Amino acid sequence: MSRHDQYRENVAGRANVEDTPELLAYYDDLKKKGAAALWTVANKIEPWEPVSQSLPMVWRYKDLRDDVLRSVELVTPEKAGRRVIYLDNPGRSDVAAAVGWIYAGLQVMHPGERASAHRHSASAIRFIMEGTGAYTVVDGHKMTLGANDFVLTPNGTWHEHAVSEDGTACIWQDGLDIPLVNALEANFYEVHPDLTQAVGHPVDDMTRTWGNPGLRPGTGAWSKGYSPMFKYEWAPTYEALSRLAETDGSPFDGILMHYMNPVTSGHVMGTLGASMQMLRPGERTRAHRHTGSCLYQVCKGSGHSVINGQRFDWTERDIFCVPSWAWHEHANASSSEEACLFCLNDLPVMEKLGLYREESFGENGGHQPLRQP
Amino acid sequence: MSRHDQYRENVAGRANVEDTPELLAYYDDLKKKGAAALWTVANKIEPWEPVSQSLPMVWRYKDLRDDVLRSVELVTPEKAGRRVIYLDNPGRSDVAAAVGWIYAGLQVMHPGERASAHRHSASAIRFIMEGTGAYTVVDGHKMTLGANDFVLTPNGTWHEHAVSEDGTACIWQDGLDIPLVNALEANFYEVHPDLTQAVGHPVDDMTRTWGNPGLRPGTGAWSKGYSPMFKYEWAPTYEALSRLAETDGSPFDGILMHYMNPVTSGHVMGTLGASMQMLRPGERTRAHRHTGSCLYQVCKGSGHSVINGQRFDWTERDIFCVPSWAWHEHANASSSEEACLFCLNDLPVMEKLGLYREESFGENGGHQPLRQP
Amino acid sequence: MSRHDQYRENVAGRANVEDTPELLAYYDDLKKKGAAALWTVANKIEPWEPVSQSLPMVWRYKDLRDDVLRSVELVTPEKAGRRVIYLDNPGRSDVAAAVGWIYAGLQVMHPGERASAHRHSASAIRFIMEGTGAYTVVDGHKMTLGANDFVLTPNGTWHEHAVSEDGTACIWQDGLDIPLVNALEANFYEVHPDLTQAVGHPVDDMTRTWGNPGLRPGTGAWSKGYSPMFKYEWAPTYEALSRLAETDGSPFDGILMHYMNPVTSGHVMGTLGASMQMLRPGERTRAHRHTGSCLYQVCKGSGHSVINGQRFDWTERDIFCVPSWAWHEHANASSSEEACLFCLNDLPVMEKLGLYREESFGENGGHQPLRQP
Amino acid sequence: MSRHDQYRENVAGRANVEDTPELLAYYDDLKKKGAAALWTVANKIEPWEPVSQSLPMVWRYKDLRDDVLRSVELVTPEKAGRRVIYLDNPGRSDVAAAVGWIYAGLQVMHPGERASAHRHSASAIRFIMEGTGAYTVVDGHKMTLGANDFVLTPNGTWHEHAVSEDGTACIWQDGLDIPLVNALEANFYEVHPDLTQAVGHPVDDMTRTWGNPGLRPGTGAWSKGYSPMFKYEWAPTYEALSRLAETDGSPFDGILMHYMNPVTSGHVMGTLGASMQMLRPGERTRAHRHTGSCLYQVCKGSGHSVINGQRFDWTERDIFCVPSWAWHEHANASSSEEACLFCLNDLPVMEKLGLYREESFGENGGHQPLRQP
Ligand SMILES: [Fe+2]
Ligand SMILES: [Fe+2]
Ligand SMILES: [Fe+2]
Ligand SMILES: [Fe+2]
Ligand SMILES: [Fe+2]
Ligand SMILES: [Fe+2]
Ligand SMILES: [Fe+2]
Ligand SMILES: [Fe+2]
Repeated sequence: MSRHDQYRENVAGRANVEDTPELLAYYDDLKKKGAAALWTVANKIEPWEPVSQSLPMVWRYKDLRDDVLRSVELVTPEKAGRRVIYLDNPGRSDVAAAVGWIYAGLQVMHPGERASAHRHSASAIRFIMEGTGAYTVVDGHKMTLGANDFVLTPNGTWHEHAVSEDGTACIWQDGLDIPLVNALEANFYEVHPDLTQAVGHPVDDMTRTWGNPGLRPGTGAWSKGYSPMFKYEWAPTYEALSRLAETDGSPFDGILMHYMNPVTSGHVMGTLGASMQMLRPGERTRAHRHTGSCLYQVCKGSGHSVINGQRFDWTERDIFCVPSWAWHEHANASSSEEACLFCLNDLPVMEKLGLYREESFGENGGHQPLRQP
Repeated sequence: MSRHDQYRENVAGRANVEDTPELLAYYDDLKKKGAAALWTVANKIEPWEPVSQSLPMVWRYKDLRDDVLRSVELVTPEKAGRRVIYLDNPGRSDVAAAVGWIYAGLQVMHPGERASAHRHSASAIRFIMEGTGAYTVVDGHKMTLGANDFVLTPNGTWHEHAVSEDGTACIWQDGLDIPLVNALEANFYEVHPDLTQAVGHPVDDMTRTWGNPGLRPGTGAWSKGYSPMFKYEWAPTYEALSRLAETDGSPFDGILMHYMNPVTSGHVMGTLGASMQMLRPGERTRAHRHTGSCLYQVCKGSGHSVINGQRFDWTERDIFCVPSWAWHEHANASSSEEACLFCLNDLPVMEKLGLYREESFGENGGHQPLRQP
Repeated sequence: MSRHDQYRENVAGRANVEDTPELLAYYDDLKKKGAAALWTVANKIEPWEPVSQSLPMVWRYKDLRDDVLRSVELVTPEKAGRRVIYLDNPGRSDVAAAVGWIYAGLQVMHPGERASAHRHSASAIRFIMEGTGAYTVVDGHKMTLGANDFVLTPNGTWHEHAVSEDGTACIWQDGLDIPLVNALEANFYEVHPDLTQAVGHPVDDMTRTWGNPGLRPGTGAWSKGYSPMFKYEWAPTYEALSRLAETDGSPFDGILMHYMNPVTSGHVMGTLGASMQMLRPGERTRAHRHTGSCLYQVCKGSGHSVINGQRFDWTERDIFCVPSWAWHEHANASSSEEACLFCLNDLPVMEKLGLYREESFGENGGHQPLRQP
Repeated sequence: MSRHDQYRENVAGRANVEDTPELLAYYDDLKKKGAAALWTVANKIEPWEPVSQSLPMVWRYKDLRDDVLRSVELVTPEKAGRRVIYLDNPGRSDVAAAVGWIYAGLQVMHPGERASAHRHSASAIRFIMEGTGAYTVVDGHKMTLGANDFVLTPNGTWHEHAVSEDGTACIWQDGLDIPLVNALEANFYEVHPDLTQAVGHPVDDMTRTWGNPGLRPGTGAWSKGYSPMFKYEWAPTYEALSRLAETDGSPFDGILMHYMNPVTSGHVMGTLGASMQMLRPGERTRAHRHTGSCLYQVCKGSGHSVINGQRFDWTERDIFCVPSWAWHEHANASSSEEACLFCLNDLPVMEKLGLYREESFGENGGHQPLRQP
């Protein structure tokens, strides 16, 4: 007979019931009826505050890049579906997540290769890491891609990726809410009947139409639950950060901008958000914590982050994660160069469901004491 | 060395990679770096359509009522926190859910008893099953409760329950999104510093203020993410169903009304929705399926439901569940009396995250063939 | 040569230019080019605060009722289009308004009469004053009408009115935004090709479907810019006021509820709002003023209002107006009976255009000194 | 005794009552009671379609520029308040409007001059026509201005304009909804207590913060009813048009973009909208008409418009108007250069009040036959 009183707390308002033979028999009886006593699990399922199952960690690009490239020799795109090495957080292996409910992988594609078109209820982003000639087609709109470009393939859109014959080997980061949509038992998958889409619009037309500052096209309405602007290019993003860098910024994030749906100014998709932030030369932020999971990629520069008291150094193309409700602060290592961090997160879920909460670290000038390794 | 190719599918666009010694070594190497090959799990994490982990099932009140009452003798409210027997779906025991990400329990309270005030990020509903004299206090608003009344204690509101000295033993169904909020790593819990709230308003003032047809109070604004009307009484709800019963209704649900936030006409809370439906005498609905999990309580009458081909008979106060994407249809057993079903669900989550999908059962006149037991 | 300096003010920031021969010649020259000097009109077109062109006034039903009934003898419905005596505010005769941009009239119809179906961009309401057997048809939905019922015929909906053969002579108040829609140069008018509509739904179906407290129908969506509930009956409205009367209410309005679009909880139509308020026995409100024009009808009881220092007594069925930015306060004459006031207003316009402003009367206990007549 | 039957129409559903001595006496009697018979004015106040009081017309800059400059010699800013020549549409002289309910004027300011700070309920825009060194301060945010820049001073914001000592004489177009706000009896005016504002932010900070394509600042929320981006510069606007020019555009407007509130993607202010459009070399649009009034300024190039069958030629800096429901089409005169038109309009009012209606000209290939002069 297993114990049922391992979560007892001696606090008013909390469950504190000791196992007795009579109770254990009662529990057994309930089990047969598909029932159980709340007080045996109440303190477990109603924790005082969140403790994430994800581990904070960094994936160094120099460690993974060779493995990613090697996959080209090991499997064909046809056999693999997509040739991707995914980030497998030890605390989230059961759901194949990099952090929280976010899946992320590094995908490689060689010139002339093309992945078959498909769609799914999971939403996806792509963030280009290296190579030239990559392009993607989303619902018939073709987009060309370069380093640090950010691309959406929202829930339900047909999509396919390729590298043109005159390009070079390309690597990008995939990010999806697959673990979340699976957990919510709402994932559907469909292969395109032709395995490829017809391109029905001028190249990059959606970015040309919707990616203009303070201006909305006179023709064309958009009411879908995600951004009509499928690609956010690096050059104007960097320029925007540079313009904003003249203002104070945030004590916790430096100069941060959210990629947005230009129609609503809300997050780019219903379940995944993303931001790009700049740590100005010498900038070191103060610690805060909030609900929601974050996966960072270093686009520019080097530095370190302290996450729940543990220091993680990073340089260009490294990826690291901050679990829900973990304290975190960032520092640019350079006093002359900017550092830029791309962040993929599930803040739309937290906000829509009323679960976002934030707290700043009050002591020690806002900086966490480092835990001894 | 464990197998990595158990999810292979021989379909264009799907992963179909056979284990080789070289690949297995590669997989081991990746694992050490916190990484893995997507094609080993792609077909598992991108299913063609949802297959719920929850089992369809019915909890009969005649089986559970004695056990619920017996808890009074076994534990005190002080020790138990709350004296609740919860519904433990065999497919969801790990997260203490009745179906999907919804927790549900039967709570009993005797005259003069009072549970201590607390609050949490999880949202809760209460649906009164039997007894008199129950009341609840939510953020200082006191509400009296009778059978089939529906009460909210939204995310972050202080709440406490009690039965007055002159009442009788009361049983109600609790419903919460605890499993979801835990999974999203966003649950906070707080005991009220005084263990009890002061009542600062006339009894039932929020229902008097907001529960009026086609009328909004001239004073008082409300912009929170949940309904200002914390209690929905049975009498006007039944009357509304009876009025609506003169119209056609839905082929899948008969006469159904969603409890709503009167300010937005949306769901009552950010994560949980609820409806009350009437199956008119002799009414038998057609089958459909949709994403989202549903937990029904029979408020009136008797009948049966067919869920994924399996028949479940029910009568007053029984509770049954319909997992996500499971076919379901309902039938009233009586040709002279109405049957009424209360339904607690997570449709707000499905809708807000863009994951709602619905399908009707086209064959056989809309009725599922019964599976042989 | 006419004067151009009659609006001079000797205040910093205001125009204060005296006419000179040179300037007058300059003004003449500008006029020929379709231009003028701003400083000649600036102080006029930029007043310090609004001064309404409408006069506060009361229309007594005992004075007008005979005239209304007499119209039956004087004109046929066929010749008149509609047999209506409208309220002609002396300050607004040029636009046929009762107050501000609101048109109002008293319409009479005898048993068996029927007005021809038509539609227009102007939005209309009807408020029933006396008689039995009246009904109206709006976009194919038929509604039966009794005293103090409130009915909508929104912008663009086909509508027609009639009194059944077994009814009595009916009088109701029409209210429309005709003056506003004309001023905005956006009014269209169309006679129904058949002069009458087919009724395609059960009688009163929209009110049965949408007029339920805290409940939304499971089938049927509604996203038009006006309420789907075309009729608001007196009995539930009065009951709602009585329930709300247990709360404090407003110092300026007593117990007031806005008729609302149940889908948005906003005003019933895009340009016209309406409310019903109860002055409890002995209740006397404090004065305030706000932008927006109000036309009141006394549904029950008697009392008086003070408007810009002038006292207006009223009794059942009288109609009175409060112009924009006029101070106003109300008093119930009875210490044992309630008084109820229906109010038609243009608050949706004020609110949507960001022009609503409100101020309370601070001195003298909130009561205006009465002007000597 | 004046006639009351001048609006008769012999059409079913319309008023058609002939004056009789008895009726005329009845009308007189009603008048004494502040009432009148609807059928005497029904056909007038319910027209079949809108007929605007505004005349279509063009104001040529070459005709007005000297007069504008001459005002500097005639009045001081202190005496004039603002030194503005306004556009006085002969059909709207009574309300000082250029078209519909839109006021517009040409303001001139010399280096070192400064207008006193004030605010009002009317919303204003400024569109820079010529000169250097102009700047404006809105609620403490300073903005520098150049030709074709577009600036907002929304309802209720403190604002002041000036030209720096090292600038040149500047002329800009003012546009306001003064006539509308006056008509709605909701205009308030206030002179700043210090006659000048303190500048509390970096120059152009709002445009730097909010004027970025597809990006929203991480800090700073904005929920006011107007855009947080007070200045829209010409260079990025022209660049956006050029990018969009690769798409099809609109048959009625060529390449048109609405200036938008970047938070909502709606119009820049609650009552006034604005757009910038490009007619590509050789482009000639097809005719349409819609409710709402439009005032165009030619920013670049030359061409003509046909308005209700009348041709109006225009060149850079000319201003012309299109009244509500007037047919209009535009043509670029050049086959090698673009023409650009700035448009100020009241479309937000039309849309919010549900009064927008549009129609395309079907015959003659979409082009109006020209009326003989
Ligand atoms: Fe995909
Ligand atoms: Fe953070
Ligand atoms: Fe609780
Ligand atoms: Fe269902
Ligand atoms: Fe009408
Ligand atoms: Fe008022
Ligand atoms: Fe101004
Ligand atoms: Fe147009």
